[in-house]
Amino acid sequence: MMQFLSLDAIAALSANLPQADDAARTAAQDRQNSLTKPPGSLGRLEELAVFMAGWRGTDRPRIDRAQALVFAGNHGICAQGVNPFPQAVTAQMVANFTAGGAAINQICRVVDADLEVIALDLDRPTADFTAHPAMTEAETLDALNRGAAAVDPGADVLVLGEMGIGNTTIASALAAALLGGSVAEWVGPGTGADAATIARKTAAIEAGLKRHAGLDPLATLAALGGREQAAICGAVLAARAARVPVILDGFICTAAAVVLHALDPRLLEHCLVGHASAEPGHRRLIAALGARPVLEVDMRLGEGSGAALALGVLRAALECHNGMATFAEAGVSGG
Amino acid sequence: MMQFLSLDAIAALSANLPQADDAARTAAQDRQNSLTKPPGSLGRLEELAVFMAGWRGTDRPRIDRAQALVFAGNHGICAQGVNPFPQAVTAQMVANFTAGGAAINQICRVVDADLEVIALDLDRPTADFTAHPAMTEAETLDALNRGAAAVDPGADVLVLGEMGIGNTTIASALAAALLGGSVAEWVGPGTGADAATIARKTAAIEAGLKRHAGLDPLATLAALGGREQAAICGAVLAARAARVPVILDGFICTAAAVVLHALDPRLLEHCLVGHASAEPGHRRLIAALGARPVLEVDMRLGEGSGAALALGVLRAALECHNGMATFAEAGVSGG
Repeated sequence: MMQFLSLDAIAALSANLPQADDAARTAAQDRQNSLTKPPGSLGRLEELAVFMAGWRGTDRPRIDRAQALVFAGNHGICAQGVNPFPQAVTAQMVANFTAGGAAINQICRVVDADLEVIALDLDRPTADFTAHPAMTEAETLDALNRGAAAVDPGADVLVLGEMGIGNTTIASALAAALLGGSVAEWVGPGTGADAATIARKTAAIEAGLKRHAGLDPLATLAALGGREQAAICGAVLAARAARVPVILDGFICTAAAVVLHALDPRLLEHCLVGHASAEPGHRRLIAALGARPVLEVDMRLGEGSGAALALGVLRAALECHNGMATFAEAGVSGG
Repeated sequence: MMQFLSLDAIAALSANLPQADDAARTAAQDRQNSLTKPPGSLGRLEELAVFMAGWRGTDRPRIDRAQALVFAGNHGICAQGVNPFPQAVTAQMVANFTAGGAAINQICRVVDADLEVIALDLDRPTADFTAHPAMTEAETLDALNRGAAAVDPGADVLVLGEMGIGNTTIASALAAALLGGSVAEWVGPGTGADAATIARKTAAIEAGLKRHAGLDPLATLAALGGREQAAICGAVLAARAARVPVILDGFICTAAAVVLHALDPRLLEHCLVGHASAEPGHRRLIAALGARPVLEVDMRLGEGSGAALALGVLRAALECHNGMATFAEAGVSGG
């Protein structure tokens, strides 16, 4: 399913959106209230269990397979000097992922997620958006479809992440275009930009916004985005079609999801924000989505690392939900 | 070691405190800076890895054995109607821990911690502190020693938790006595107290503070505390003697640790606060300790549940620290 995303297919999905199962949610909440603890005392763990119950359509949801997808792309905007690292680092980091040497590899091992890294035409960066649209419509749809096709509809949860030198600039541009506000409010240090680099990031984004103003969300994605952002959108849509809950990562991943939010806020109902990144714009994005991050541990790495760490909390939530005794089972008074 | 805690032994420990290994910390920080990520981008995970390196005395700390200790006690203050649950629930929950049905059992399984539950004379509650000191000096030292004796000096990290109907009242009393402020600021709903119960909690604590004013920290522990609070103090001290880092749980566990902080703030240098509880006084306690919780997920259950969940983050931190490639190893530019 979702192998052939098109603008029409996205509209059709929006018109007939798979929903969470309210009966399963209610049954899961009833179970939470029967477990040997004061009602509500597991806080967000209870909310996460009920959320999972709704999307998986069962009062006792399990995570047998957690899929983690990391999409990588390269960006023509790097010609504007927006990042201290050379663009070759994207492919080098993909090799590092493949060899098991990156943070996301270690965290996926701890939380038992199956990691797949998908490099999207790294030798063919998008265009510099200060001069041209970053991608054609065909390139955008291709990346959307590659993201959608990567999703295992049999997974119980999907962790999304990204890698791409220069892509905090992409994320800031998408955020400013779709949510408004001054560019400076959306621009941060990324991988470690100094003040001069930040000034170049800001100027490049301002030029891009001026050149590509007044576009609809998907045209904005094409004009200012990148392949990994489009792939994230495709994966979120494919996951929704299969009622697979999604854990979004940090600033870049969330900014990509904002494209879908701008199309139809309901498209993100099955998504959690795994953590609040230390990249300053992320909290503004989270607020714009009306979301609440699972973790706040000052991470700002990308790669899906914060989302994967949040999967550990989700696993604990479901272990409590499924494994705890009820007051009646345990013979504990007062339930 | 630490089998025979006494007031003199605590003073002797304070006078000759085991310290973190600065060379190991520095070497661990150097390693963090060499790993394939922008420096600092793993946020608190980097801090946690360096913290562990210092206390374990190696630049590559591991968690081969994580010990979780949950101490349970009963409290004479329950005669004042401070808790909606009957006191028998303490023993019922201990049986639930033993049978594997509580939240802490599930979370310990997820984060691979070895759980031990130590019931401290549940059939012999402490005295009602509105009328008498809760414990004699001998009872206090006995509980301190039982906590200390339970610590495995060969563990790599110690998770501490507690169970005891009525013990948010104990925690609020200790906090108010040791840190000052109005009693109302330290009193919250606990397991689900209504307004009338909260009023009784507040009145009971005010009476206790009036009766047991002007005492030193350990005498305050005896007068207002309970066996599980004393055992937590003993375990923190024994862990320090063995340079085993500690993860404190929520309001009650942290309030117990405040007794040690009042004796000598350095006694808690090896302790993390695992999470910020939804019990309102906990954030005030955390601020008084100058600590920062690892997690903020609205838990307010006790049992060590929040501390155990934080162990999952600590494990991820060390997996990244030990398992990631360096820039040189991975052939990634820009390190």
